[in-house]
Amino acid sequence: MIQADVRMPTREGVIAAAASVAGILPPTPLLPVEIGGVRAWVKAETLQPIGSFKIRGAWWRLSNLSEEERRAGVVAVSSGNHAQGVAWSARRLGVRAIIVMPHDAPQVKLDNTRELGAEVVLYQRTAEDRDAVAAGLIAEGGGTLVHAFGDPWVIEGQGSAAIEIAAQLGRSPSRIVACCGGGGLTAGLALGAPEAKVHPVEPVGWDMVGQAMAKGELVHAAPDAPKTICDALQPNVTKALNLGLLKGRAEPGVTVTDDEVRAAQRFAFAALRLVVEPGGAAALAAALAGKVPVDVDTVIMLTGGNADPAAYAATIGASA
Amino acid sequence: MIQADVRMPTREGVIAAAASVAGILPPTPLLPVEIGGVRAWVKAETLQPIGSFKIRGAWWRLSNLSEEERRAGVVAVSSGNHAQGVAWSARRLGVRAIIVMPHDAPQVKLDNTRELGAEVVLYQRTAEDRDAVAAGLIAEGGGTLVHAFGDPWVIEGQGSAAIEIAAQLGRSPSRIVACCGGGGLTAGLALGAPEAKVHPVEPVGWDMVGQAMAKGELVHAAPDAPKTICDALQPNVTKALNLGLLKGRAEPGVTVTDDEVRAAQRFAFAALRLVVEPGGAAALAAALAGKVPVDVDTVIMLTGGNADPAAYAATIGASA
Repeated sequence: MIQADVRMPTREGVIAAAASVAGILPPTPLLPVEIGGVRAWVKAETLQPIGSFKIRGAWWRLSNLSEEERRAGVVAVSSGNHAQGVAWSARRLGVRAIIVMPHDAPQVKLDNTRELGAEVVLYQRTAEDRDAVAAGLIAEGGGTLVHAFGDPWVIEGQGSAAIEIAAQLGRSPSRIVACCGGGGLTAGLALGAPEAKVHPVEPVGWDMVGQAMAKGELVHAAPDAPKTICDALQPNVTKALNLGLLKGRAEPGVTVTDDEVRAAQRFAFAALRLVVEPGGAAALAAALAGKVPVDVDTVIMLTGGNADPAAYAATIGASA
Repeated sequence: MIQADVRMPTREGVIAAAASVAGILPPTPLLPVEIGGVRAWVKAETLQPIGSFKIRGAWWRLSNLSEEERRAGVVAVSSGNHAQGVAWSARRLGVRAIIVMPHDAPQVKLDNTRELGAEVVLYQRTAEDRDAVAAGLIAEGGGTLVHAFGDPWVIEGQGSAAIEIAAQLGRSPSRIVACCGGGGLTAGLALGAPEAKVHPVEPVGWDMVGQAMAKGELVHAAPDAPKTICDALQPNVTKALNLGLLKGRAEPGVTVTDDEVRAAQRFAFAALRLVVEPGGAAALAAALAGKVPVDVDTVIMLTGGNADPAAYAATIGASA
């Protein structure tokens, strides 16, 4: 197994990642949005080719593999969006990809990942340690682990969104409100937008980054953590790398409920005409619920749009 | 009543409209889409502030009013998207707007139009002549009629999308597939993209433009025309102005069924993460159904995203 996390991600790395990403992906739109009478912005990462920002970090990681590493392939662990980012990048670079996904990942994410040419290995979310499954695959067949959040290239790649935002705004945003699973995006944004406040938003009971920042140490999800509709935001624990970058730099974490997330999905449907999956709507949910401040240079990340059709229909139909 | 259609729209007018629109609205994204193995493009006009391209023509018409005309206000007739375009532009320019809307217009469109500050006057779609209702309002209180499609400025304004597309592609599109109600957008695109084939797409039974082009004369909707879910694409007849611009210039019209439109809405949901209303999905429906050719420089217009939540939920949930 090749050890990926041997260096700290840097702001220079984020800028380099942004240049690389700009070479293959057009900027996603920064759209005006009115919240509580204030004109702010949403960054529509839902319009990336794979429907989420995860394409950024995966691309930056895979395009930095050596020739030897490319030949050996990659292994990733993901509930679905990182999976598609790795699969998309791997196909484009001609690299073999194996993705370890939870057995209860949304069907749309499983289907999309396979359609992008990756090999999917399922694991039981509650019974198995997904990192151990990945480590086993690498011990057996070789390859580089592309961690979903605890990897310096992945963090830099996700942070490229901040460079894009500043270019689109013509200045630094005052604050960026971002959904937070393991803390890859928020850590990258913190590096990429040094003048902005960064607000991590997590589902109730799954605020492993918010709790870790408050305690100053890693905190594991409780065995009886509540269910959440935010399938993309359920890490068992963040990593020391992410905690180190966020502690003392990011704003305190806030949490959102399933109902707040659904209300945000309905708002995105009606006011923005964007399909947003639950985890992708968490930041918007916090803004709409008044849990984070919103001013004119606030940017709210809409991070994923791979919504399960039946669940989405139930959420949208409930507003009628 | 000030007679608006006293001149022919021109390509120069379209270019001027594009410059004016660019001053107030960022370009809508041109997103890659794969249809039948071919990489083409969708123009996401659903991401305009009012959720449709109609903001272009309304803005260009209203910003060309004289001071005297501005003081007298405007009257428009619309099933909902032109209404919002006129209301948005009128508010921005400080002009009073009265909009004549069918009693069965989607609630979301009625609500949005009123929220934008316009006064809404309802008429019975089947029993009353909407143009007569508007003419009566103007005879009574004055003001300029802003026709939804049979107006030279409106046509030029809608055509501004073609200038934006060419700038984004870096060349002329080979063809533009566009939904068609009265023929304002298609006429504008024909002027704005002289090197492109323009394909009007209409709902079955409501192809008043396609039939008029085929016959060389205006054709009225049959009294027993079938129902369509494309509420935005139900004109009773096109205008001589539109027919004159499209005849011998546009490709023959094609028609799409409700089922084809629903399939396109589901495709936009899953593959593009965009909310598209039925009428706004007509062009995509024609492309997906193989009713128009698709090549690498084909652009498919997604023209509107103001979907009724209950109807949209039923459509999306049906794919699960």
